[in-house]
Amino acid sequence: MREFKRLTPYGEALNLMLDNIEEIPETEEVSLDNALGRVLAEDIVSPIDSPPFDRAAVDGYALRAEDTFPAREYNPVELKVIDEINAGEESSAKVEPGTAVKLTTGAKIPDGANAVLMQEMAERDRDIIRVLRPAAPGQNVAFAGEDVKRGDVVLRKGQILRPQDLALLKSVSFKRVKVKRRPRVGIIVTGDELIEEFDEEALKSGKILESNSTMLKGLVKQYFGEPVFYGVVPDEEEAIREAIERAKTENDLVLVTGGSAFGDKDFAHRFVRLLFHGTTIKPGRPIGYGERTFVMSGYPAAVFAQFHLYVKHALAKLVGARDYEIKVRAELVERIPSQLGRYEFVKVHYEGGKARPIKKRGSGIISSLVESNGYIGIPEDSEGYLEGEEVWVTLY
Amino acid sequence: MREFKRLTPYGEALNLMLDNIEEIPETEEVSLDNALGRVLAEDIVSPIDSPPFDRAAVDGYALRAEDTFPAREYNPVELKVIDEINAGEESSAKVEPGTAVKLTTGAKIPDGANAVLMQEMAERDRDIIRVLRPAAPGQNVAFAGEDVKRGDVVLRKGQILRPQDLALLKSVSFKRVKVKRRPRVGIIVTGDELIEEFDEEALKSGKILESNSTMLKGLVKQYFGEPVFYGVVPDEEEAIREAIERAKTENDLVLVTGGSAFGDKDFAHRFVRLLFHGTTIKPGRPIGYGERTFVMSGYPAAVFAQFHLYVKHALAKLVGARDYEIKVRAELVERIPSQLGRYEFVKVHYEGGKARPIKKRGSGIISSLVESNGYIGIPEDSEGYLEGEEVWVTLY
Repeated sequence: MREFKRLTPYGEALNLMLDNIEEIPETEEVSLDNALGRVLAEDIVSPIDSPPFDRAAVDGYALRAEDTFPAREYNPVELKVIDEINAGEESSAKVEPGTAVKLTTGAKIPDGANAVLMQEMAERDRDIIRVLRPAAPGQNVAFAGEDVKRGDVVLRKGQILRPQDLALLKSVSFKRVKVKRRPRVGIIVTGDELIEEFDEEALKSGKILESNSTMLKGLVKQYFGEPVFYGVVPDEEEAIREAIERAKTENDLVLVTGGSAFGDKDFAHRFVRLLFHGTTIKPGRPIGYGERTFVMSGYPAAVFAQFHLYVKHALAKLVGARDYEIKVRAELVERIPSQLGRYEFVKVHYEGGKARPIKKRGSGIISSLVESNGYIGIPEDSEGYLEGEEVWVTLY
Repeated sequence: MREFKRLTPYGEALNLMLDNIEEIPETEEVSLDNALGRVLAEDIVSPIDSPPFDRAAVDGYALRAEDTFPAREYNPVELKVIDEINAGEESSAKVEPGTAVKLTTGAKIPDGANAVLMQEMAERDRDIIRVLRPAAPGQNVAFAGEDVKRGDVVLRKGQILRPQDLALLKSVSFKRVKVKRRPRVGIIVTGDELIEEFDEEALKSGKILESNSTMLKGLVKQYFGEPVFYGVVPDEEEAIREAIERAKTENDLVLVTGGSAFGDKDFAHRFVRLLFHGTTIKPGRPIGYGERTFVMSGYPAAVFAQFHLYVKHALAKLVGARDYEIKVRAELVERIPSQLGRYEFVKVHYEGGKARPIKKRGSGIISSLVESNGYIGIPEDSEGYLEGEEVWVTLY
């Protein structure tokens, strides 16, 4: 087995790869109900003020604050109620000195009024209210444009749309929104030892159940993409070449698992002009990238690390997504040794501000992925972290 | 406007509500490709060992470690290569003393062998290898059941299925998985001031664009549910009664926005036998709950807080989901005052271990929700937190 001449440092390889990937230009318009989790393709400028008019923040009386300035409990000011409106209605009355309009929360403030007195602050007698205390101008008024002003940029390109973002869009009159097309991601799995269906005999005689495609399909969906699975391709030079060629023309990104090392049966890396091959990451060292194609390991835990360290960032760049990673501070409950010169991807379980490293570290070990919910990346120049040290965990 | 006789403390109301909600019994079987984000309905016991056999962790030679014990660089041990296999193949040969089988990574260890010598550690000459250093028993062997043993519980009921969980299921021979049915959540929006379509004239004369349904549909989807929208119901006693009755029979949970307070037009709370009405939360105080129905505020920011403080937990209980909240430690970059006696839902922007409170605090303010990505819950007995204090942020 040939070895890598040089392991490209993690960060250097990441930059080489990202520089090689361009944001996809295509967008699509979807209804707000179908936009959850999609990536916004343009800045959104509000075409209206929201709220569109000054409105009452409580149930009460719209009035001129000036009229109430002399009001005292022992010397109430009397105002005449000239109209009553509910939210959604508009009063045709104008509030002149000495008058008020009764309204409910959310109703438009009538002309002439500049404050709303809470209902329970006035004594009512037929069409007269007695005001016991002065009201300040603007009191209990939600002003037009208080939430959003016409012309404001309310959301920026690259935003991953959440329920509150969709609500804001709706409140400023959008019904549809322009999002990035989902990148198509071709997934090719190689390995003669892999079977897709349970077969007891086969499992006794050297075959194993393939699971990389299942994992990658899920990860691709989680990170903005649309997976396209090309099946398990046998370890034959021509079959692998053809699958890669086809997947490259049909997808924005291609992931090939298996065949990234230099074994006799490792073909995949021969058909891609790689920008790097072999990086300092551990596990997952033999990853290669070029021509929008990742040549990845065969072992699931290595594939998982390669996805989070490289592929995730490629997908985010393809759609121009921002804020797609959650990084949290945590106290390490157990020491993690790390090999100098390697960028270690250490799986941890994060909970309640503490991070517990998951010990089973073989790259074939899927159960360790299941126990973890995040990772610590230990740079090449570090020998690891001590128990009790404060570390950064990237959640997944 | 009547006031609440008593505000039920947040935690007390939460428990009253949760005690009233039962996990739904119905499950459905879905393919692994359709299981992402669904909630596992049963414990999963592995029917097989994974890997199913001892296998090579590197490309090399399967041999008897004992044979190599005398090996030194100046005194190599010679072994005869009696077979060559690739991953997925099984050797019919038995490794007897003095012999070895060449194999690739992942191949099944032949009978008789107990270690794998890395390819580059041996010098090969036709069917003879010269071993220069001793190998330890078990060296470079991934043992059967090393990842998962037959009979192990590999995933627990209530797990929200992630890509790695699906991969584990696949690797132990599952193709489908039993998940909880999505709870149906009826959404009723009330308010005569609300319009669904942009209409400039209407917006000038007191109407506003309805956005609660958009937000709640998204939140319900985010937390395991299937939203069913019943439209905007006018502020008429009979219309609201009918909508609530119908939604209660057709859904597992019902959310009604608007009409939770005691205004003249607040009808919704009259048609539900409430376990509590009015809690210490701020914003969102007038929330009521009973008969699987939440009577919520009309203001979007209040609805959002009510969802995260109550409805989210109801949905998680309906499906028996675990670990559906991410809580992180953060340093507060600005002081937050809080009112004694209120459980304040303070929106923050969390980034890089720091939490910045979002200042705009009117309950009508959707833009504040958009700026935030988490909240701090300040209990009733606290007057708030100081700048620089360490706080817990629940991300959303």
